[in-house]
Order: sequence, then structure tokens, then C-alpha cells
Amino acid sequence: MHPHITGKTRIYGLIGDPLKSARSPMLLNRLFAEAQTDAVCIPLEVGTQALAEFVKGARALRNLDGLLVTMPHKQTMLEVVDILHPSARQVGAINVVRCDKDGRWEGAVFDGLGCVLGMQRQGVSVLGKSVLLVGAGGSGRAIAFAVAAAGAYSLTISDLDPHRAADLAQSAGKEGSCNVHAGPPDPEGHDIVINATPLGMNPDDPMPVEAERLTPAMVVVDIITRSEPTALLLAAQARGCKTLDGEPMHLGQALLALDFLGFKNIERRYSTGL
Amino acid sequence: MHPHITGKTRIYGLIGDPLKSARSPMLLNRLFAEAQTDAVCIPLEVGTQALAEFVKGARALRNLDGLLVTMPHKQTMLEVVDILHPSARQVGAINVVRCDKDGRWEGAVFDGLGCVLGMQRQGVSVLGKSVLLVGAGGSGRAIAFAVAAAGAYSLTISDLDPHRAADLAQSAGKEGSCNVHAGPPDPEGHDIVINATPLGMNPDDPMPVEAERLTPAMVVVDIITRSEPTALLLAAQARGCKTLDGEPMHLGQALLALDFLGFKNIERRYSTGL
Repeated sequence: MHPHITGKTRIYGLIGDPLKSARSPMLLNRLFAEAQTDAVCIPLEVGTQALAEFVKGARALRNLDGLLVTMPHKQTMLEVVDILHPSARQVGAINVVRCDKDGRWEGAVFDGLGCVLGMQRQGVSVLGKSVLLVGAGGSGRAIAFAVAAAGAYSLTISDLDPHRAADLAQSAGKEGSCNVHAGPPDPEGHDIVINATPLGMNPDDPMPVEAERLTPAMVVVDIITRSEPTALLLAAQARGCKTLDGEPMHLGQALLALDFLGFKNIERRYSTGL
Repeated sequence: MHPHITGKTRIYGLIGDPLKSARSPMLLNRLFAEAQTDAVCIPLEVGTQALAEFVKGARALRNLDGLLVTMPHKQTMLEVVDILHPSARQVGAINVVRCDKDGRWEGAVFDGLGCVLGMQRQGVSVLGKSVLLVGAGGSGRAIAFAVAAAGAYSLTISDLDPHRAADLAQSAGKEGSCNVHAGPPDPEGHDIVINATPLGMNPDDPMPVEAERLTPAMVVVDIITRSEPTALLLAAQARGCKTLDGEPMHLGQALLALDFLGFKNIERRYSTGL
């Protein structure tokens, strides 16, 4: 049922390809409904080749107020928007576009800040902590900057490609006073372990970290969003660790995206729960 | 609340400008929900100048299955689609576009056929009847062809512009065996009176027909959709006429549009109520 869509309803699109398992429309529409906002988020499936044409058409719409951006468009959208939010410039990707009334599009990325906010909302702060981040791809890159900026004491970045880990460590190390370096996927000596690789999506995947070296005081975060816990989270739970799946990050991203899109009421409402 | 929109939901857009008082999204979404169809209709506000750009972008979308078309794009869309349904070729306008899987767009117009279907669903058949149609603009034009094709005995077309009335009478007269001619807005001698002018939208509007010449056996249809009855309908009711407002036509249009868009189940369900 979507009986509340009228001619006045403002439109938010989620662009990506594929979108079959996308969950943002459901989450945003729930937040819109809870805030009694006359807006709707719909999936807009656009392939790589068609993005430029799509963008021209989208700019012709008067009631399109924003876009959520997912794969494969997160980098390409950097060239499309008129203004880059500092987060997008830093991370080199976009996951939300605000379509301003003057016709200008501003792009931002809240993957990393959403991960940190989601952890905070679950009582896990990175402030002063030693963090192991596995995966220096798109999500890992965003999380590295956000963790460093949120006051972590140290951040170890691990990736199958050691150059990619070292490059990201160097860039993220410029943020604040966090001690950032590349290293192996060994939890020992860390307070928080974050998996930002796709390992765990499929049953046959190897573990992203050396799970046998997890200890009960560690918090283990796996940003993969699926209904069943990943093998990493099951192993961490068996060893007594507090665990977080991808849900808190997903909600954190959505809250920050909505705040950026101008829904200050939604953000305030949820931030009281911090 | 629109909690059922997921990444798999198929999109139908209503294009027009302005759309503030558009009611099709509500009606279509109700029909989608009743048929448990994973589809949503959203308003897409596009101005005249931006239509060409919008269309390019819309063609880039993989999950857009159709467009409803309202003012000011009903004529312009004739140049945009790849295939014209006979209704669109006849009337010279489009109010629905089906975006086929092979990428081709087919345009049709169900304003007139929807009016006739809506009347039928309310027990009013034009078969063998004498019909007075006031207004030879976009809606009037569509209704004239549909009334003539549905087997009316005669059709009088009245318009402030006598040339426009005469031109339409000549074109619609080629449909079937209906005796179509231009004439004054005088109900006398007619079984059914249809107002297809905008007169009645505003309180100060003059009557579209000579209302004092309505008699109780006549059926009066006013296609204007608003919450309060128009002055014409009030006058007709006062004189004992059966009256229909714009709702039956609106539903008839939607049912025919959905049938054209491939929702055979919705059409069947409603056609049992004929």
C-alpha cells in the first residue's frame, strides 16, 4: 500500500544496477512515514552506459529532491554533481545527491560516517580505540576516513592488495591525530574489528580476519547486510565478542543522508536515541 | 506509508505540469495495492521545455514500465513514442505510454473510451442514444470519437468556436454510423448531455449548456473532477436528471490504461462490475 502519494509528493530516487536486493527504499520510506513527510523513495535502475542520459532527464524533473547512489555509480557521480561536500572530496565517492531548488546538485558520501554513527547508536565508540579495518575498497575507504576523524587512537588497514592498504593508510593518516598504518588481518591488540570486504556474502568465502585470535573484549562489526549472521559474526559470538551486523551502519547512513537532504526533524528525532 | 516499495518495484510515472491537484497516483496505487502488484505510480513534474531531456533520461531507466501523460504533454508525446495505438492516431493525443521490454514506447489515449466505460459502469449506455457534447478541446475530441464508435445514434458537438466544433464533427462522423454534427448547447432532443469544457471549475463560470432546458429523462455528465458538484450537476439534479461527475471517467481511464499497460487481472476484476 502506498496510498499517500499525490501530485505534491516529493521524489527521492535510488540509482544503481542491480537494485533487486536494495533495501534503502524500504528504510527511507519508513523514516518518511514516521516523520509524516510527503516524500517517497523509489528505485531507479540505471546501467553504467545510461547514466549520462539519465542525469539529463533527472535534472528536468521539478519534484526530484535527491538521489541515493549505489554501485556502479558511486565514483562516476563525482563528475556529474555541481558541488562536492567535503566527505565526497575526501573519500572520492558519492552516495547521496541533494537537488537544490536553484538547480545545483551537491554530492556527499555517508558510508563511513554512517558506520561510525551506527556503532555509536549501539554503544560502540571509536574514540581512543585501536581499530582493525579489513578491506580498503569503496566502503573501507569511507570507513577509514570516518574512523580516523572520529578520534580513534590507531587504525590498522588490511587488504589483499598491500599497496591499496598502504595508500589508504597514508591518506587517512592525514585526518586528525589517529595513527594509521597498513597491516595484517590479525585482531590481536585491537579493540574493534571491522570487516569492509565482501567476504562472508557467500557460504564458501574464507574468513576476512584471523577469527581464532578474537578475544571477548573485542567488538566485531561486519558491514555486510543480510538476514543471516556472517561466518565472522558467528565465530565472534562464539568467542564472546559483542557483534554488530550491517544494520546499524545502514540506518546511520540513512539518517545522515536525510539530514543532508534537509530532513532535520528526522535526524533530531533519531539522534536523541544516541 | 509506502512500506512495500523495494528494489524490485516497477515504476509508473505521471508526467505533467502542474501536478499539484493530480489524482491519478492515488487511484493507480490503490488499484496496484488491491491487485497486490509490486508497482508504484509517482508524479514526475516536467515542464514543456524540459520534456525532450526528460524522455531521454526516462528511456535510460530499466524499471520504468509506463507513463501517464497529462497537460501540457498530451500532444507533444505523439512525437516522442515509437508506436501509436489507433486511439492516439485518431484523437491526436496520448495519455498513457507503455515502455516495452524491447525499449519501444507505445502511446495510447483513453480519455474518451474511459468516459464511455465509466458511463457504462454507472448503467449509462450511449448505444442508440442522442448525445450532446459541449466542448471540442482535448477531452471533448477524445470523447466525440469514443461516443461515435460506441454506437450513439446521433452526436451534437457544441463549442464556443464553431469552426472547431464543425471540424471535430466532420472527423468523428467518419466513425461508424453515428450522425455527428455541430450545433448549439441546447439539451432539447438529447438523451445524454456531456460537459467537456472547463466551465464549472470556478464559481463565477457561466453554465456550459442551457440548463433550464434539461428534462428529467436526460442523463447529465460533467467530466470535471472536484469534490463539490458543479453548478451544472446541481441544476440537473434539481430538474430530476440522473447525473455523473468526473469520477466514473477517471476510473474508466485508469482501468483502460492499466489494461493497456498489461495488468489484465486488474481490468478483469473491475470489468465484472460492469
